[in-house]
Amino acid sequence: MQIGFIGLGNMGQAMARNLLQAGHSLTVHNRTPSRAEPLVAAGARLAVTPGDAAQGEAVITMVADDRALEAVSFGDGGIVARLPPNAVHVSMSTIGVALSERLTDAHREAGQVYVAAPVFGRPEAAAAAKLFVVAAGPAAALERCKPLFEAIGQRTFAFGDHPATANVVKLSGNFLLASVVEALSEAFALARKSGIDPHQYLELLTSTLFAAPAYKTYGGLIADQRYEPAGFKMPLALKDVRLTLAAAEAAGVPLPIASLVRDQLISGIARGYGESDWSALGRVVAENAGIRD
Amino acid sequence: MQIGFIGLGNMGQAMARNLLQAGHSLTVHNRTPSRAEPLVAAGARLAVTPGDAAQGEAVITMVADDRALEAVSFGDGGIVARLPPNAVHVSMSTIGVALSERLTDAHREAGQVYVAAPVFGRPEAAAAAKLFVVAAGPAAALERCKPLFEAIGQRTFAFGDHPATANVVKLSGNFLLASVVEALSEAFALARKSGIDPHQYLELLTSTLFAAPAYKTYGGLIADQRYEPAGFKMPLALKDVRLTLAAAEAAGVPLPIASLVRDQLISGIARGYGESDWSALGRVVAENAGIRD
Amino acid sequence: MQIGFIGLGNMGQAMARNLLQAGHSLTVHNRTPSRAEPLVAAGARLAVTPGDAAQGEAVITMVADDRALEAVSFGDGGIVARLPPNAVHVSMSTIGVALSERLTDAHREAGQVYVAAPVFGRPEAAAAAKLFVVAAGPAAALERCKPLFEAIGQRTFAFGDHPATANVVKLSGNFLLASVVEALSEAFALARKSGIDPHQYLELLTSTLFAAPAYKTYGGLIADQRYEPAGFKMPLALKDVRLTLAAAEAAGVPLPIASLVRDQLISGIARGYGESDWSALGRVVAENAGIRD
Amino acid sequence: MQIGFIGLGNMGQAMARNLLQAGHSLTVHNRTPSRAEPLVAAGARLAVTPGDAAQGEAVITMVADDRALEAVSFGDGGIVARLPPNAVHVSMSTIGVALSERLTDAHREAGQVYVAAPVFGRPEAAAAAKLFVVAAGPAAALERCKPLFEAIGQRTFAFGDHPATANVVKLSGNFLLASVVEALSEAFALARKSGIDPHQYLELLTSTLFAAPAYKTYGGLIADQRYEPAGFKMPLALKDVRLTLAAAEAAGVPLPIASLVRDQLISGIARGYGESDWSALGRVVAENAGIRD
Repeated sequence: MQIGFIGLGNMGQAMARNLLQAGHSLTVHNRTPSRAEPLVAAGARLAVTPGDAAQGEAVITMVADDRALEAVSFGDGGIVARLPPNAVHVSMSTIGVALSERLTDAHREAGQVYVAAPVFGRPEAAAAAKLFVVAAGPAAALERCKPLFEAIGQRTFAFGDHPATANVVKLSGNFLLASVVEALSEAFALARKSGIDPHQYLELLTSTLFAAPAYKTYGGLIADQRYEPAGFKMPLALKDVRLTLAAAEAAGVPLPIASLVRDQLISGIARGYGESDWSALGRVVAENAGIRD
Repeated sequence: MQIGFIGLGNMGQAMARNLLQAGHSLTVHNRTPSRAEPLVAAGARLAVTPGDAAQGEAVITMVADDRALEAVSFGDGGIVARLPPNAVHVSMSTIGVALSERLTDAHREAGQVYVAAPVFGRPEAAAAAKLFVVAAGPAAALERCKPLFEAIGQRTFAFGDHPATANVVKLSGNFLLASVVEALSEAFALARKSGIDPHQYLELLTSTLFAAPAYKTYGGLIADQRYEPAGFKMPLALKDVRLTLAAAEAAGVPLPIASLVRDQLISGIARGYGESDWSALGRVVAENAGIRD
Repeated sequence: MQIGFIGLGNMGQAMARNLLQAGHSLTVHNRTPSRAEPLVAAGARLAVTPGDAAQGEAVITMVADDRALEAVSFGDGGIVARLPPNAVHVSMSTIGVALSERLTDAHREAGQVYVAAPVFGRPEAAAAAKLFVVAAGPAAALERCKPLFEAIGQRTFAFGDHPATANVVKLSGNFLLASVVEALSEAFALARKSGIDPHQYLELLTSTLFAAPAYKTYGGLIADQRYEPAGFKMPLALKDVRLTLAAAEAAGVPLPIASLVRDQLISGIARGYGESDWSALGRVVAENAGIRD
Repeated sequence: MQIGFIGLGNMGQAMARNLLQAGHSLTVHNRTPSRAEPLVAAGARLAVTPGDAAQGEAVITMVADDRALEAVSFGDGGIVARLPPNAVHVSMSTIGVALSERLTDAHREAGQVYVAAPVFGRPEAAAAAKLFVVAAGPAAALERCKPLFEAIGQRTFAFGDHPATANVVKLSGNFLLASVVEALSEAFALARKSGIDPHQYLELLTSTLFAAPAYKTYGGLIADQRYEPAGFKMPLALKDVRLTLAAAEAAGVPLPIASLVRDQLISGIARGYGESDWSALGRVVAENAGIRD
């Protein structure tokens, strides 16, 4: 397919490369153009504006946050203004429900199609084309995007024709991860102050009831107290929790664990851990228990 | 080995049977003696008092709570008064840290040995001899108990020579489960009010980051809203959270998620769900979000 | 003084009348013009647009929320576009810190002056010219506004030259009120389930350590379970808590009680109490304790 | 009246002196007898055992906690064993509901009377005979105790004939105080990080909606960051919150603010502030916001 790809961060870079390797014809755009060089060397064209990247059958966006997606979507040189009729905007960033609704409307009014397809997986999974794709939008559009999803992910979960649904699924998944990180942080603080070896404790947990990637990954980081370098920085985690709380408030759902995690992340950033991985909640909780490393 | 077994509830019943089948010579005791009949039919002897069951090399206790364990351990006809020198009291119930410390001292003073060996697993796992055993106590005693643990569980995790450590591990494991139940309850409330099919949502979670027994079991109950019959009733879960909070307070560790779950369980019981499974936190959270089934 | 007044709700209506009675020359504006009739009958002029009301030495805004203030402030017929040089925009609404900062900048760039002067007090206090005014802005501007503040309030507290400071003070004051309402709700639920007469309990509290207006007002409403008619509806309280949390997040301050109250308000609205007074937190907390009236 | 007084800490010392000055005949007992010297010099007799102090018409206990009250009440030389028939045990300590119920039963079985009469007020109020007394018990007994209450307090609030009711009232009052301390701590952290002068902020609060002793006292300590010397140490506050939570759990009432304060107090003690006043919650909250003094 003829497609555009906007947003070449760690995730986007890897996804775009997999699309190229799957044989798609790619036009890429990034705010900092130098990030596009390796892809151009591999055969992609470089677009100067977001709208220039949106001249094919579909344009994929994988940008940092709501603000960045607004910047590439709206305005004169933006996607909505330039995408051809019936072409698809495939929005794969983790964004808020309100913006997803707004883009759904804007593209429909412009005679285009909007699909929300956020992904689960860290950069290593993106590089290995092992992401999980959560997609929602018009059935025909999801069908058209199938080869794109297959090029970057190991499995696609379709959640109906209302795009924002996929964003709720993604945000709530991140919330569940956040609750794992906070709960593990609390359990490890108790274990450490009770004289229990953290690695032996983790071995028990992940061999029995919690034999899941989330526990292995974050339990390992907390047991090791290895919060740098960051895979996913605290302020980004705070952004996702904030979006989840906003979506839940709009839906009339209190999320007390999300509220609690939000407070802990704010505290972590205020204590100076804004450059640390969000698993540094383990350090926040340990300090609250009087543990000084 | 010549052993005693005290406490023939759903769990104890199954564990005692597996010990018998492994060839051990068993004397059993239960407050309600009729519960012992199937085991007696299978070859066990019946003891009238807890102390009568504590005449072999080891006596295992698997009772409901701290109070029940105090009742069988202390006093004239109790275990401490009657257990032979150097014999081992293997305490497998989920009890508090303070009582475990107290029993450690009492048995040492009486020239006996105390081992804490609580287990992870529901009654089905007990029946299949698939429990996980978390054991702590003097190394020699753990070695002596090895055949017992092997008869009832699939794996034993040894946590050093201080018995109460095993209780902290068990309680904190239950706390982690409780945090999963609460977090899933919140995520499902958001999913349902956002028009997302709960079973499809669960399928996504358990196929990706949360492919663990805890998520499959409790996610399934919450997605089905199937809170009866109870596998583990709300008041028992409240008891365990209370013991965890007490252990953490003694160790100087705040556990905000445990505090939150405690409040939700109290609310659930106050709303009339005391006979429901503790996964009925899903109902409490849904009601708080204005969902009326 | 020649002044404009925009926003004639329950509060604004009463404040404008007091300004008229103090001898000021008043031009008023309201989105629904019929609300202006009593004031016009009493001598005020009616302005068709916000900008038309902003032609004097000062214009006061007392509108519902951030969105309403943006609507009257920005755009062609708005205050910023039309206010004469050196004239003052006195913003008395309870708004967010970010909008206050934005208006500070906009007015400075337009050669005008912005003062934030939110008030404490319910409509009865506004009618009696007994409000408390919390003002911040350039010292000279505060001096010029003094007669206006004196016409509507019993006392003015000046908080320096940075306008947004006054908004933080107002929001944090509302947060403290919210914490009183939640804490009283919890205490009354315990009292009621313990067989204690709520009115006798309230008499004790307000005769001793809690002899303050906040406790008398909200304690009385909760003891009476008199949540309708609303003096301040739940969604408005939720808006203020949301603004407080946003201000605190920007400042790097976790506010766990505010997070908790936010969840309770969301729950109250989800349960169908959106038209009730925010003291209906008392009902939410009582229901959580299984109390059915 | 002929009365006994047990427990001569800061509070008890002052209360006993006021009883002496009101003309009552006093026999005093304290675990550390030297604390009794000033009272003996002023005319009191010294009793060697608690039971020896319980030989008059009434015996008042004002001890540190449940454990201390159990120690003086039960056993051979204790109050229950030695108090004459129809004499009254007036229990003025802040204790748990369960112990109050237990003492009610024990005294009734022994043909004696039990009255719970905890007090509000700090040592200065005790010295000035300005305490508030919260009393519950049989009406005739309350009538008999009236002169005692009048000698030590400025006002008595009677809460019916069930003694434990008075304990719930006292505990819930302390809980409300705790919620004030936590809420003020949060508000001051926000104010400080927003560049607001804490004392000016406090002046505003206590001149307007929060013109109550609780806000003046604790707001002053937090604004001054003056947490030592302690008027009421963190571990004692934690004990009271624990008793409140236990009473509420027994009554089926979740108290989320109390749970939150419990976590903060545990954290404060774990951080090393166990000798500080409980208003050092202000320091805990400030640290969580990244404020380093």
